[in-house]
Amino acid sequence: MNEYVDNEARKAKLVGKTVTMAHGAGGHQTSELIDMIFKAHFDNPDLTADDAAVLTPPIGKMAVSTDGFIVSPAFYPGGNIGKLSICGTVNDLSCMGAKPLYLTCAFVIEEGFPMEKLEEIAEAMEKTAKEAGVRIVSGDTKVAGKGQVDGVFITTTGIGEITDGVEVAGNLAKPGDAIIVTGDIGRHGCTILLAREDFGIDADVTSDCAPLWGNVKAVMDATHELHVIRDATRGGVGTVLYEIAGQSQVGIRLDASKIPVAPEVRGVCGMLGLEPLYLACEGRLVIMAPKEQAQTIVDALKVCPYSQDAAIIGEVTEEQPGKVVMLTEIGTQALLPQPGGELLPRIC
Amino acid sequence: MNEYVDNEARKAKLVGKTVTMAHGAGGHQTSELIDMIFKAHFDNPDLTADDAAVLTPPIGKMAVSTDGFIVSPAFYPGGNIGKLSICGTVNDLSCMGAKPLYLTCAFVIEEGFPMEKLEEIAEAMEKTAKEAGVRIVSGDTKVAGKGQVDGVFITTTGIGEITDGVEVAGNLAKPGDAIIVTGDIGRHGCTILLAREDFGIDADVTSDCAPLWGNVKAVMDATHELHVIRDATRGGVGTVLYEIAGQSQVGIRLDASKIPVAPEVRGVCGMLGLEPLYLACEGRLVIMAPKEQAQTIVDALKVCPYSQDAAIIGEVTEEQPGKVVMLTEIGTQALLPQPGGELLPRIC
Repeated sequence: MNEYVDNEARKAKLVGKTVTMAHGAGGHQTSELIDMIFKAHFDNPDLTADDAAVLTPPIGKMAVSTDGFIVSPAFYPGGNIGKLSICGTVNDLSCMGAKPLYLTCAFVIEEGFPMEKLEEIAEAMEKTAKEAGVRIVSGDTKVAGKGQVDGVFITTTGIGEITDGVEVAGNLAKPGDAIIVTGDIGRHGCTILLAREDFGIDADVTSDCAPLWGNVKAVMDATHELHVIRDATRGGVGTVLYEIAGQSQVGIRLDASKIPVAPEVRGVCGMLGLEPLYLACEGRLVIMAPKEQAQTIVDALKVCPYSQDAAIIGEVTEEQPGKVVMLTEIGTQALLPQPGGELLPRIC
Repeated sequence: MNEYVDNEARKAKLVGKTVTMAHGAGGHQTSELIDMIFKAHFDNPDLTADDAAVLTPPIGKMAVSTDGFIVSPAFYPGGNIGKLSICGTVNDLSCMGAKPLYLTCAFVIEEGFPMEKLEEIAEAMEKTAKEAGVRIVSGDTKVAGKGQVDGVFITTTGIGEITDGVEVAGNLAKPGDAIIVTGDIGRHGCTILLAREDFGIDADVTSDCAPLWGNVKAVMDATHELHVIRDATRGGVGTVLYEIAGQSQVGIRLDASKIPVAPEVRGVCGMLGLEPLYLACEGRLVIMAPKEQAQTIVDALKVCPYSQDAAIIGEVTEEQPGKVVMLTEIGTQALLPQPGGELLPRIC
């Protein structure tokens, strides 16, 4: 009860306030900003007030991953840059079969950025970190002048504990493997595209941004016979498939009719002439595993949040190594064009 | 020999080129940029091409620290943002008594940024990481549009192994402790100030930016009786001393005549009415330890690079807890004004 009252008082203090250069100078205003917003949300026994957190290392091997987030706009249907900054790094660790343990976050904030927006970002980070079971242990806050950074950029770095007995990597795909996606594709890229209002299209699309450690764990609990787990972010599922085809020197054959795409995403892609396979996801995995395990994996995924629509979309082949071929809905085969160019920038 | 020829060819390819939005889209241009510049410099057995590095964790406790670097200008006498981004995190770990093992780095680069400048930054990072004995293990590259980021921002995160038997923290200062600085103060802040050309002062000042793990190790090898080790960055030595005075609830008495300040820094401060104690350092430590250990510590520091001018500058007192008092050169006592306000923004 008391905490609620305090929290209301804390929030009331943020109304109408903005971030100033003094908040980034390292003096008492910096401490105030950290206490008022970041510490209020991230507090946990491992969070340090010093320059470095002191932590118990993972048992066995550890995975370490870093990602900078500069998504524009920073707020969009289904999430914001705060949620994204946790999901991105949690998912990179998860794709190595690593349980996310610790996260650091470094903010660069534009002078004049509204405190209430920063509060919203921190709130989303807290909620997502809790859901993913990861602790924020250390942070940094810098302020750049008006026009020297676009709103707020966040860099997160994650440390995870690698699960014994699972070895997954982009070069381990084998002919005969089934290719699974954990849900409908292209949502995040489509959402950001529409949020930029450059196109004047009004469609009800929300980002798929989600922390996926629980999904990876469910899959690993069901089978250790896994070859590749990757999250399809920048560049979408298509780019990830081309990367794996190259790294593993295998061909990839997709069945277009099996690829889950939400009708609203398909609609937008149709209007703009975009390929959903090249639109970013922020909550979708591509999994490759021996065909015999495919249904077990899909069944495990279907009972988890964020992957009820998991589907087998194709298979790994010996033919056409390095290429991705699509079996179209009318029964013909076509090469998926290679990714390249700008795609959609600043989507993560 | 062959490597030299290849390296020349690699560098020749960078001439006149700039970073484009496509370099940040996650496709093959992103891979090319990483290979051409970052991998060429950072290559080591722990550097990952995947989303996360797989590492052997530290033995015992580990220290984890993150820092965003947005210094403006990015190139200045004595260093650049690349060197700074390694030193800052290496020094944060070192101040916890932790040997720096692994670093990650995330870049946000402005569209149009010259490749040759990026090469210079990566070169400085490589050199500094080698000197500090730390491995760059994972990275991330994002590109923001022209005017959406000022040049290049770098966030580094470091993982270190904490030395058994040494416990240092800002709240462990004790009355009777000697206060040591490892060299002349205020160089970095003064250098950035002059590099901005706002003042039209032409003085020959270079940044003190340096990786200090070797210095901390030398001190710990000489004695384990240490209470506080801090690097004086944003806010300078004065801000650090006020922080420690507050955290440890002790007073601090400085002897102004003992504080090492380079004549050129003193000159600039005199002209602009600045207090060198509040100018940033990026290669200076503040150490507090029992008086009996002070000379041993100074002797250990004087034989290391970057700390030949180490000096005892004052002592920790029971009187005036939370305050920093200066014994002036004419024998009077004065309270050091409390830090606050903007100080000098974007100096790190």
